[in-house]
Amino acid sequence: MEITTIKDIARLCGVGVSTVSRAINNHPDINEETKEMIMKVIKENNYIPNNSARNLKRTDSKAIAVLIKGITNPFFSNMIKIFEKKIKEKKYSFILQHVDDREDEVDIAIELIKEKKLKGIVFLGGHFSHPDEKLRQLNVPFVLSTIATIEKLDKSLCSSVSLDDYKESYKIVDYLCKQGHKKIAIITAPLDDESIGTLRFRGYVSALRDNGIEVDKNIIGIMKSNIESYSMDNGYAVTKELLASGEEFTAVYAICDSMAIGACKAIFDYGKRVPEDYSVAGFDGLDLAKFYNPSITTIRQPVEKIAEETIKILFDVIGKKKLVEHKTFQGELVIGQSTGRI
Amino acid sequence: MEITTIKDIARLCGVGVSTVSRAINNHPDINEETKEMIMKVIKENNYIPNNSARNLKRTDSKAIAVLIKGITNPFFSNMIKIFEKKIKEKKYSFILQHVDDREDEVDIAIELIKEKKLKGIVFLGGHFSHPDEKLRQLNVPFVLSTIATIEKLDKSLCSSVSLDDYKESYKIVDYLCKQGHKKIAIITAPLDDESIGTLRFRGYVSALRDNGIEVDKNIIGIMKSNIESYSMDNGYAVTKELLASGEEFTAVYAICDSMAIGACKAIFDYGKRVPEDYSVAGFDGLDLAKFYNPSITTIRQPVEKIAEETIKILFDVIGKKKLVEHKTFQGELVIGQSTGRI
Repeated sequence: MEITTIKDIARLCGVGVSTVSRAINNHPDINEETKEMIMKVIKENNYIPNNSARNLKRTDSKAIAVLIKGITNPFFSNMIKIFEKKIKEKKYSFILQHVDDREDEVDIAIELIKEKKLKGIVFLGGHFSHPDEKLRQLNVPFVLSTIATIEKLDKSLCSSVSLDDYKESYKIVDYLCKQGHKKIAIITAPLDDESIGTLRFRGYVSALRDNGIEVDKNIIGIMKSNIESYSMDNGYAVTKELLASGEEFTAVYAICDSMAIGACKAIFDYGKRVPEDYSVAGFDGLDLAKFYNPSITTIRQPVEKIAEETIKILFDVIGKKKLVEHKTFQGELVIGQSTGRI
Repeated sequence: MEITTIKDIARLCGVGVSTVSRAINNHPDINEETKEMIMKVIKENNYIPNNSARNLKRTDSKAIAVLIKGITNPFFSNMIKIFEKKIKEKKYSFILQHVDDREDEVDIAIELIKEKKLKGIVFLGGHFSHPDEKLRQLNVPFVLSTIATIEKLDKSLCSSVSLDDYKESYKIVDYLCKQGHKKIAIITAPLDDESIGTLRFRGYVSALRDNGIEVDKNIIGIMKSNIESYSMDNGYAVTKELLASGEEFTAVYAICDSMAIGACKAIFDYGKRVPEDYSVAGFDGLDLAKFYNPSITTIRQPVEKIAEETIKILFDVIGKKKLVEHKTFQGELVIGQSTGRI
């Protein structure tokens, strides 16, 4: 006889379908012996619960949403996988919601809370500047994950997990200075940026000053607004202009790995070498940086740890173990082949 | 006076809030002059409709879902952006649903149709082998986009947009043969794979045979099951083994660009050069392939065109302009610096 449905299992066990369902779903409201017996029958009969349908149906009661800015950022890919895994382990369903650059993530979150009866929210990426009154409308726990908060945020209103972008940026620029570089070009966001761009730029400025180097505005390269931001194409275009400008520099610091790779390619196309003619450094620690030729010196963000801690804090707050928590991880300076001593 | 709400606009226009809403949403059921007047007032007062909330609320009535397998594939990133743009242009809301490798996308789609009252579905990526009876349960139009259909699929049941993976793979391997390579290693999926892996492998086999070259099973590298499939890490590990095996080969064809980049890195770490010692070719035409050093010879998939055509066909079927449509795009052989004549 072939066993295919939950009804067959219930009949074999002499219990109701809802009891089988409770056993499968780890529901607390079931006798432990009954549960064991049901799970044994399920196993013996190779019954596979229909997970997909189950997860979707569960959406109504227990869901966590991850609102992500910049879905095309390779940096987020691994984090999303970990979010999904950890949320499913907790028997919650996982909703991934993409937020457009022009959209207000808090508005979207407020709607989602109503529509999906969310139990918690992760805001992933981008920057975050909303009035406190607005944040108070979010009546479920939420965690800001790898989000730059330039403005003073009332830390009692939310939790956060991030890197100190200022400090890490300082670290890699300081490393370049210690390698003897005095003319370090930067590829960064527009200077009125309110996101990681500003923080990483400030780290660059401080590191130069502390090493007794004047900031030279002629070698500050600003991402092109007509090219996708933080992309290889953008790093390429900005570096090409820097090279053509005739300004002198011996190193390029791009505030993300993708732009650093674009910078390398522009240098090669200009007939020069990395690191013999120009050192190049990035930020993020993508796989890409490791596999590039030459491998890119970068700040590796501990993405797995950040993602795991984000979910841990979220469930701690949901479970009322704590009200809020703020955690800052250290980045790791990874010395690749793309930088050298001058 | 500051104008902030839709109510203010309605009051200024002397109409109801629902009329303003109809004007904003391009609803057909509104007098053209009234609409123009309202849009003028909106513009004059710099009123910005709350798009986010609007889109979410609209979910109930008009939504398209994109079900994606392999959200971490950089290949899909640009496609998702185009899907979102085109779907929003049509005033539909856009739902991105991630499907796990172990989940059944049709089950998920059936649930979503009920839950969200979907008007249409795009299945993106992966392979697709479901009994016809199951597909008939999908009672809204759907399009398979860049999906490998190995099994005979009843073409009257659905629409599709794709590349001919067999033919394109043949094209790039034939190119390597014509460059004088006779020992061409491949990095591919397990041979019982039912997805693009099999199609691209078959193209490799046919191209070799047509060039009078025996398939040598000792230089068929299979992705490691314990490493993320189609990743740089996997390409690296497989190539490392091929190099260490002592088998002779002069070219490596990886069935995706990420693995081709891993292959290059393994060759560099082995102390050899690309293309002087080994030619390397990939597939997909990622930005990465263009920016790598050396740039990677590859088959560029016209992702933008594929994405646009997918949405066009979906709306043609929704609008009953046609029942189904099947469209196959040509890939472009892009000759990079990673391959050379032997």
